[in-house]
Amino acid sequence: MESTGAASATDRLSLISGRDVRQACRTGVFSGQTSGAANGYTQANLAVVPSDLAFDFLEFCRRNPKPCPVLDVTEPGSPVPGRVAPDADLRSDLPRYRIWKNGEVVDEPTDASEYWRDDFVAFVIGCSFTFESAMLRAEIPIRHVELGCNVPMYCTNIPCRESGPFKGSMVVSMRPLSPADAIRSVQITSRFPSVHGAPVHLGLPEQIGITDLSRPDFGEAVPINEGEIPVFWACGVTPQVAIMNAKPPLAITHSPGCMFVTDLTDESLAVG
Amino acid sequence: MESTGAASATDRLSLISGRDVRQACRTGVFSGQTSGAANGYTQANLAVVPSDLAFDFLEFCRRNPKPCPVLDVTEPGSPVPGRVAPDADLRSDLPRYRIWKNGEVVDEPTDASEYWRDDFVAFVIGCSFTFESAMLRAEIPIRHVELGCNVPMYCTNIPCRESGPFKGSMVVSMRPLSPADAIRSVQITSRFPSVHGAPVHLGLPEQIGITDLSRPDFGEAVPINEGEIPVFWACGVTPQVAIMNAKPPLAITHSPGCMFVTDLTDESLAVG
Repeated sequence: MESTGAASATDRLSLISGRDVRQACRTGVFSGQTSGAANGYTQANLAVVPSDLAFDFLEFCRRNPKPCPVLDVTEPGSPVPGRVAPDADLRSDLPRYRIWKNGEVVDEPTDASEYWRDDFVAFVIGCSFTFESAMLRAEIPIRHVELGCNVPMYCTNIPCRESGPFKGSMVVSMRPLSPADAIRSVQITSRFPSVHGAPVHLGLPEQIGITDLSRPDFGEAVPINEGEIPVFWACGVTPQVAIMNAKPPLAITHSPGCMFVTDLTDESLAVG
Repeated sequence: MESTGAASATDRLSLISGRDVRQACRTGVFSGQTSGAANGYTQANLAVVPSDLAFDFLEFCRRNPKPCPVLDVTEPGSPVPGRVAPDADLRSDLPRYRIWKNGEVVDEPTDASEYWRDDFVAFVIGCSFTFESAMLRAEIPIRHVELGCNVPMYCTNIPCRESGPFKGSMVVSMRPLSPADAIRSVQITSRFPSVHGAPVHLGLPEQIGITDLSRPDFGEAVPINEGEIPVFWACGVTPQVAIMNAKPPLAITHSPGCMFVTDLTDESLAVG
């Protein structure tokens, strides 16, 4: 029921701009999931770490570009992502945050200002919502969008390349597709390397350590129909796993599904 | 005359492997330009900075991916680029280095071991030699290759995005091409985003601040024939300009044209 509520709430939000969504977050009017909000504007994952870990984290992202495609990095101490939303404040402009202490979530506030430190560096990381809108424009049905629920996400046995204390396995999102749509989706999402790009796997989930598709580690399960195969994309929850493993004294991320909405347009991220 | 000599020397080197070239550098047998050496193996620019500048430099590269496409980053203190050449030693395996103190070149040794510090982080950065081999395979003639000289390179008015103390304008390399070959070259080099990718400009050099094509800032001038236009690609000398401006107490780069030869193959870097 909550999912259906979220879907109808974001229906109303679909026609407004990224700036409007951020303003609604900043003023406390909106604190829900952003799927479908500000249609056409690029949504993003957030990860904030102390500056003495910033090199290791940036290098973790560079070493693992499919789960961690970096769209913007702030100046140390600044909450302003100048490249993707110059008038935004990352402390307040997301619907909901996760506060991490020593690798554990200790709070999920709607405003992170009280936790902000002068030595924080914020990373804005691409999100699969961008390529989903390209898939939908190509008339490829996306199950979790049809159902108005969160995408199912799974921990895998695909190792990330380590960097300093940041390490862990890749998290993937899954969309069931007909083989023809799976092929077309490889083509479409390959055009979006800065938002996870082409799938990392399809068809044989056990090969990547997923034994039960009906029990995702994050998000919600969706049915796989006769004649469909599961298709897996690298997921922006991966950096949260890396932060969990690195155990920094303090870090901030978005709460899953509650993304940062930028001023970029989805189509501006396409290549080729 | 020196250019012709270098070309015939590299002719003999063209059939050996990246590892063989590195070994010849390490033992002091070879200290020349690497253009044409180890044909098919990816060559790269080198930049080494102290670890307290590593985040700013990595972020400079991320903010300027066309001139600074990062192929590998070493662990702090390690001279081993584990991803691109696991048995290499970056202190000795290039033909010739530039040693920078406070932004000025103070030495150009054939071995950089005596300058190495335990807090150095090395960046291996893509090089246009990779896409040149793809152009040659497509039967697009490359003037400076035909002439056996170094590619002409120019400082431009295209600003790089700053990161910490690293800043400066983009350096570009130029190849004169027929309009049809220019179009084909855009297609071919777009497949190689990790080695500078598509051109940044063509046809109107004054728009990017180049007033005299016969006087390149680096490399050697080449003739532009009737019916040809100049085509400009972002160049891996750009990070050296950024190091010149940042004035770190100590830094190491390759000497222009004397590249690091990796174990990667050029074709492995193609996308699409």
